[in-house]
Amino acid sequence: MERSLIQAIEQVLTDRSGRIARWTGDDAAVVRSRPLAVTSIDSVAEGVHFGFGTHSPADVGWKALATALSDLAAMGAEAGEAYVALALPAGFEGALELVAGMEELAGRCGATIAGGDVIRAPALVVTVAVTGWADAEEELAGRDGARPGDLVGVTGALGGSEAARVLLERGEEPPPEALRRHLRPEPRLAAGRTLAAAGATAMIDLSDGLATDAAHVAKRSGAELRLRLADLPLAEGVDRMDGDPHVFAATAGDDYELLVTVPPERRADAVRAAESGGTTLTWLGDVAAGLGLALLDEHGHDVAGLEGYEHA
Amino acid sequence: MERSLIQAIEQVLTDRSGRIARWTGDDAAVVRSRPLAVTSIDSVAEGVHFGFGTHSPADVGWKALATALSDLAAMGAEAGEAYVALALPAGFEGALELVAGMEELAGRCGATIAGGDVIRAPALVVTVAVTGWADAEEELAGRDGARPGDLVGVTGALGGSEAARVLLERGEEPPPEALRRHLRPEPRLAAGRTLAAAGATAMIDLSDGLATDAAHVAKRSGAELRLRLADLPLAEGVDRMDGDPHVFAATAGDDYELLVTVPPERRADAVRAAESGGTTLTWLGDVAAGLGLALLDEHGHDVAGLEGYEHA
Repeated sequence: MERSLIQAIEQVLTDRSGRIARWTGDDAAVVRSRPLAVTSIDSVAEGVHFGFGTHSPADVGWKALATALSDLAAMGAEAGEAYVALALPAGFEGALELVAGMEELAGRCGATIAGGDVIRAPALVVTVAVTGWADAEEELAGRDGARPGDLVGVTGALGGSEAARVLLERGEEPPPEALRRHLRPEPRLAAGRTLAAAGATAMIDLSDGLATDAAHVAKRSGAELRLRLADLPLAEGVDRMDGDPHVFAATAGDDYELLVTVPPERRADAVRAAESGGTTLTWLGDVAAGLGLALLDEHGHDVAGLEGYEHA
Repeated sequence: MERSLIQAIEQVLTDRSGRIARWTGDDAAVVRSRPLAVTSIDSVAEGVHFGFGTHSPADVGWKALATALSDLAAMGAEAGEAYVALALPAGFEGALELVAGMEELAGRCGATIAGGDVIRAPALVVTVAVTGWADAEEELAGRDGARPGDLVGVTGALGGSEAARVLLERGEEPPPEALRRHLRPEPRLAAGRTLAAAGATAMIDLSDGLATDAAHVAKRSGAELRLRLADLPLAEGVDRMDGDPHVFAATAGDDYELLVTVPPERRADAVRAAESGGTTLTWLGDVAAGLGLALLDEHGHDVAGLEGYEHA
C-alpha cells in the first residue's frame, strides 16, 4: 500500500494513553501494561454491515471502532489502544476520512489508535482490535455470573439503530436520535465500568439484539433469564415500525446498550452507577433456576419460541 | 455468522499461555499481562496475497498468523495471544481448516489464539492481531537504533518465497524448501529474541523485500545502510529466476527473515545468538553516516537508484 496514505493516516492520530513506548513507524506498538489486558477484535464489511448510501467513510470508521469498544464496555474495562486493519478496494478514496471518524470516537473514549495495516482487497473490510485494561479481575464482569434471584436491567433504549435503518430503506427521515444511534453508536464504556464496580454479576453488550444476547448470558451462566417484553425501553422511531414495537426492540441489533444482572440488594447502587455512567437503567425481569431465555408477554406467556417472533 | 462454525472453531483452540483468565465465550479475552505489551495487526486478502490455486485454506491461516508473528519477532518479543477476524464470502467452506492451519503454527510458536470474529463479506480477508510480551524495553529492538559503525546482518536466505511463487506461476515445480517458504513461512521468533538480547541496535522483518525494509531502518535511524549485493544469501530456487539473482533476492518479498544491525564488538555474540535461535547470520555491510540505502555491486557502485532495479 502506498507509503503516502500510511503517513497521512499517522498524521491524524493522537497518543492519549501516556503508556505508549513505541507505535507508528515500528514493526509493532509497545505499550506499558496494567495487570489485566482485555482484548476484542471485530470486523465490518461494506454491503453487509454498512453501505455508502447511508454511511459516510467517517461513519464507517466510527462504527468499526464502536463495535470493538462496546465489547470492552461489556467487560467493565477501561479503553486503551486500538489496532486497525483496512482492506481497501481499488478506487476507494475515503481511507483518511474513515480513520478520522474513528479517531473522533477514540478521542471521546480516551482510546489511542496505536497501530494498523493497510492492504488492497476486492472489498472494503475494516477490522479493529482493541485492548482495554483493568487492575484486578473483580473489576470486570463476564457473561457467566448471573445467579437465580438477580435482577436483569438494560441501559438506555432499544431498537433505535434498526428503526433508523428501516426508515432510511423506506426513504423516510428517521428521528435524529435514532439516526445517531445508527450512524454514530456510543459504546457504553463509562456505564460498563460503573456497573461492574456496582456489583454486576454478568454483563453483555447488545449487538445481535436483546433476545439473542440475553440467551448468551443465560447459557453461559447456566440460568434462566425471564424478561417482561412490555418493560423494554423503546428508542425513538420504534413506534413507526410494523408489528409489535416491543418484539421489534427485543430482536433489533446494533443497539450497543448493556444488559446487566445485579443481586437485588445492589439494585439502587446499579441505578446510581448507570446514571454516573451517563445513562439510565431499566429493570426488565429476573434470573431464575433453569436454563435459557423467557420473553414474557402481558399475560405471562413466554413468546421467545413462537413462530413469527424472529426478526425478518 | 452461524453459531455452529464459531463453536467448531473454539473446539480446535488450545490455551498455551497459562495467562488467560477469560477467552472464548465472553465479550473479550482477559489476559494477565507482563510489563510490556507488543502488538501488531496484519491482513491478507484472497487474490492479493494468496490464491487457492496454490494455497490450501490451512496455508492461508498459517500465512496470516506468520505475517503478524513476524512483526513480534522483529521486536524481540515473546509470542503471546492472537486474535483472528475472518471475513468469509458466501459458499466458502474452508474456515475450520484455515483456523486449524493457524493453530498448527500457533502451537509451534507457543502462541494462543485467544479470540476472534467471523463475518460474511464479499471477499475472503483474514486479519490477525498478535500481542507479545516483554519485561523491559531493553529486551526489545526497534527500527531506529542503527548507528554508524554497526554491522548489518540478515538471517537465513532470501528470495525463496518469491522464487516459488514465480515457478508455480510458470507451471514448474519449486524446490521443496522454497515451496515451504512460500506456503508455510516460519517467523523468526526465537532468533529475534536472542538477537535482541545479543545487542541488536535495530531489527526489522523482511516482508516487503530487503531493499524496501532496509530503507525503513535507514530512514528511522537517520543513517545510511551500505549493503553488498554479492553477499546476499540466496535461497534455493533463486538461481532459476531471470536476471541477476542477487537483485532478485534483494527485491523479493515475503521472506520473513530478519535484518539486524549490531555494534562491531557484538559481532560474535550475534552469530551465536542467531545459531541458538535456529538460523544463520550473514553479514551484508555496515551502517554509515548519511541517510538512506546503498546497494553496492561488485565494483562498489550503488545500484539502488538505477532503472530496472525495482522488481517487476
